Amino acid sequence: MTGKFIVVEGLEGAGKSSVIALVESIIQTQGHKTITTREPGGTPMAEAIRHCVKQNWQETVTEETELMLMYAARAQLLANVIKPALADGKWVIGDRHDLSSQAYQGGGRGIQQAKLDALRDITLQGFVPDLTLYLDVEPEVGLARARGRGELDRIELAGLDFFHRTRARYQALAAADESVITIDAMQHMEAVHQSVKDTLEHYFSC
Amino acid sequence: MTGKFIVVEGLEGAGKSSVIALVESIIQTQGHKTITTREPGGTPMAEAIRHCVKQNWQETVTEETELMLMYAARAQLLANVIKPALADGKWVIGDRHDLSSQAYQGGGRGIQQAKLDALRDITLQGFVPDLTLYLDVEPEVGLARARGRGELDRIELAGLDFFHRTRARYQALAAADESVITIDAMQHMEAVHQSVKDTLEHYFSC
Repeated sequence: MTGKFIVVEGLEGAGKSSVIALVESIIQTQGHKTITTREPGGTPMAEAIRHCVKQNWQETVTEETELMLMYAARAQLLANVIKPALADGKWVIGDRHDLSSQAYQGGGRGIQQAKLDALRDITLQGFVPDLTLYLDVEPEVGLARARGRGELDRIELAGLDFFHRTRARYQALAAADESVITIDAMQHMEAVHQSVKDTLEHYFSC
Repeated sequence: MTGKFIVVEGLEGAGKSSVIALVESIIQTQGHKTITTREPGGTPMAEAIRHCVKQNWQETVTEETELMLMYAARAQLLANVIKPALADGKWVIGDRHDLSSQAYQGGGRGIQQAKLDALRDITLQGFVPDLTLYLDVEPEVGLARARGRGELDRIELAGLDFFHRTRARYQALAAADESVITIDAMQHMEAVHQSVKDTLEHYFSC
C-alpha cells in the first residue's frame, strides 16, 4: 500500500501553515501515518539550496538560476523524502511543490513555459500530487499578513505586480486541473478550515 | 571591441592551473586585459552553489540535482562576470565551462544528452567559448597528482571508471569540435607549456 501526496499552495500570507496542521490532523484521524515537507527544502542539501535561492544577494540573480535551484531542491526532496515515504505507506503533506514554480517563476517572473516544462520533465518525470489545495488570497491581504511575521526574503520583495501575476497563474492552473481545489483564503480562518474539511471529506468519500 | 573567452578543460590533476597562468601571461603580452574565472563558482552566489554541489552530503545527491546546480552556477557567472568582461574588451580565461558538464555529468554520470541539451539551451542560449584547450591525461596519472594536493571532494571520489568515462567523452567532443584543441598533458610540464604556446601563437595568427 502506498500513501498519497497532498500539497498546500498559495501566496505568502494565504494561511498555508494552519491549513497544513489541519490537513495533517484530519489524515491522521483517518488512521494514516503522515509526514510534512516544505519546498524549496526538506533535506539538508535542499535546505542549503533554499538558503541560497532566498538570500538577498548583492549580485543579480538570473531568472534561470532561480528556476534551476528550485528544481534542484525539488529533485533532492522527491528522491530522498517524498518517494520513500509514499512507498512506505505514509501520506505526505507538502508546503508547496511544482505548482509554486509554475506560478512564481512562470507567472510572476514570466519565464517561458518551454523552460519550465524542460526542468519539470528532468526533475519529476511524470510525478504529480494526488491532491492540491490552493489557498487563493489577494496579494495585498497576504503580504500584509506576511509582513507581520518579520523580514521579507528576496523573492517576497519582488513587488506587488509580481504577486498579481503569480496569483493569476495560480488561478488559471487551478481552474484547468481537477486535482487542484481552490479555497477562498480571504474568508475568516474558521470558514477556510471548514472548506478544507469539506474538500478532504469529499476526497475520502471518492 | 569585445574580448575573447578561452577555456582550459581537463580531468583533476591535468595541470589546468599552471596552463591558466601561462595563457594569462601570453594574452597580457599581446596587450589585452584579462580576468580568470572558475566553474562552478566565480560569483558569491555561484561559489555558494559550488560549495553545495561539492560537499560530501550524507544524503544521495541525484544526478539531476548535480546537473542543475552546475548550470545554475554557470548562469550566474555568465551574466555577472563573463559577458560584462567580454563587453568591456577583456579576455576571459576560464577554469572549466560547459565542456565539463558534457564530460563529467554526460560521460561520467551517463546523464541523457537530451537533459544536458535542455539545460544548456536554458543557460547559454547559444553562447560558446572562442577557444578551449583540453588537457588530456590518463585518470590514474591525474588523480595521483590531485591526491598530492589533499582531500578529494564528492565528485573526485566517484571512482576510476567514472573518470575513464569522463575522459572518453572529453576526447570524443574535442575531436568533433575544431574550437577545442587537445593537448597531451602526460608530457613533462615544459612540453605541455610549449604546446600551449604553439596553439595560442597559431590562434593569434589567424
